[in-house]
Amino acid sequence: MSFFTNHIKLDIEWGHCDPAGIVFNSRFFEFFDIGTWMLFQTALSVPKQLLLEHFGIAGLPLVEAGANFSIPLKFGDVAELESTIGEFRRASFDVRHRILKNGKLAVDGLEKRVWAGRDPNDRSRIHAIAIPADVIERFRIK
Amino acid sequence: MSFFTNHIKLDIEWGHCDPAGIVFNSRFFEFFDIGTWMLFQTALSVPKQLLLEHFGIAGLPLVEAGANFSIPLKFGDVAELESTIGEFRRASFDVRHRILKNGKLAVDGLEKRVWAGRDPNDRSRIHAIAIPADVIERFRIK
Amino acid sequence: MSFFTNHIKLDIEWGHCDPAGIVFNSRFFEFFDIGTWMLFQTALSVPKQLLLEHFGIAGLPLVEAGANFSIPLKFGDVAELESTIGEFRRASFDVRHRILKNGKLAVDGLEKRVWAGRDPNDRSRIHAIAIPADVIERFRIK
Amino acid sequence: MSFFTNHIKLDIEWGHCDPAGIVFNSRFFEFFDIGTWMLFQTALSVPKQLLLEHFGIAGLPLVEAGANFSIPLKFGDVAELESTIGEFRRASFDVRHRILKNGKLAVDGLEKRVWAGRDPNDRSRIHAIAIPADVIERFRIK
Repeated sequence: MSFFTNHIKLDIEWGHCDPAGIVFNSRFFEFFDIGTWMLFQTALSVPKQLLLEHFGIAGLPLVEAGANFSIPLKFGDVAELESTIGEFRRASFDVRHRILKNGKLAVDGLEKRVWAGRDPNDRSRIHAIAIPADVIERFRIK
Repeated sequence: MSFFTNHIKLDIEWGHCDPAGIVFNSRFFEFFDIGTWMLFQTALSVPKQLLLEHFGIAGLPLVEAGANFSIPLKFGDVAELESTIGEFRRASFDVRHRILKNGKLAVDGLEKRVWAGRDPNDRSRIHAIAIPADVIERFRIK
Repeated sequence: MSFFTNHIKLDIEWGHCDPAGIVFNSRFFEFFDIGTWMLFQTALSVPKQLLLEHFGIAGLPLVEAGANFSIPLKFGDVAELESTIGEFRRASFDVRHRILKNGKLAVDGLEKRVWAGRDPNDRSRIHAIAIPADVIERFRIK
Repeated sequence: MSFFTNHIKLDIEWGHCDPAGIVFNSRFFEFFDIGTWMLFQTALSVPKQLLLEHFGIAGLPLVEAGANFSIPLKFGDVAELESTIGEFRRASFDVRHRILKNGKLAVDGLEKRVWAGRDPNDRSRIHAIAIPADVIERFRIK
């Protein structure tokens, strides 16, 4: 089984870079977040800012994030961010992010997120709830 | 008439700096925001995260921000941020921010903010409301 | 006399926004910086990361930045950043930035920057130098 | 064998938080970077901005970063960042970062970094070089 991959062009800006002249690591985790929202928007055909309301959820909170950095990115680089589902579990899922520079893997990232609803007994609390089957279905490549 | 000044130590970090090796300008506006919250917390003796609830307001939205940059700050610098009220108007106010490096003015900033409440006819909208006299009084140096 | 205007599409992301659900003010100064580099790249037909080397300068350091905030931007908004030269002086210049949301002015910004060279007597120091006439000429709309 | 642990107080600011009202994940990777520089400054008794020059290295580039997020942090929280060496290898090392809120583990992070020198045949290139034994010795708790 294979899942839809979303592609985003990344323009590397002056303000993304540190005194070594390369993208500061925290920026990559911003890029991953952008990638996840766009992946969901595209696969589910719902504007990203309406996803939570549309599916009646509280959020897609991160429980884990990680990245391997192979090739540094610099001011003026144009890279490509590929985001796809690594795995759907009952109430959580992995998003795999790959940032390519000139077609070579520069950064390899992973996010683990939860499909989170509000606790009906305490609306200030959120908890993992089952991902609807039709949500998962939308990400599948037939 | 003179107003209370809040002092914050600023540690300049690697991630604050750009490829020229100096603090990237947007970071100063983050510092100003930190300064304003701490100024209000200290002058009003209310923890910053409870200020909105305590005073029944929706926020202190920025309507203007600006800065002059005289001396660059670099990784490892320890600077001082001085924040004080420039002026209280009926429903808005100015916060003046000065960042000093070795006692010299490095950055001179200004924020104009509004004391904002929720519109009783439409809770999704906010509008400027009069700043309570006792709030202003608390900032005064007797 | 009128100057070339550069246009950039701004996608407002989740990570740009604060607990009030609107873009945190420092992000606008990041956007302005992006706008200035792209304005120079386009007007001068030199990739932004090669501008300093191409013109033999040390940088375009900011000496002043400011903005008025009229309409908040939110996650999922698509805005337009218009950047143009406000004025060229002998060794410094103004860049005007306007961010439009649905065609309405949301943020109105200004940067004052210096055309900076290295001091020939002390390469670690930079100072304002005259902007070449042909640089200015390239920004003019005939 | 056990290594020195550095402790930093983290004040969670308004601008660190996202529309869900919690710290946006990329900020934690900024915090880790701050923790690593301070760990090295303290263990080696060299100001962080002089570390590269002092040891004749080009940097401590990240090759991997990751975090588990257990408890969200909010505006006004005061947390503690504990940073320590996980392992020293010949030319690379792990830094473990733990962020505690009210004494409970909120974020558990890891950075893998390289002790990097300039390639003598091509000064624009960097490569991993052996970590000096006396550097490692300084981190040890006797």
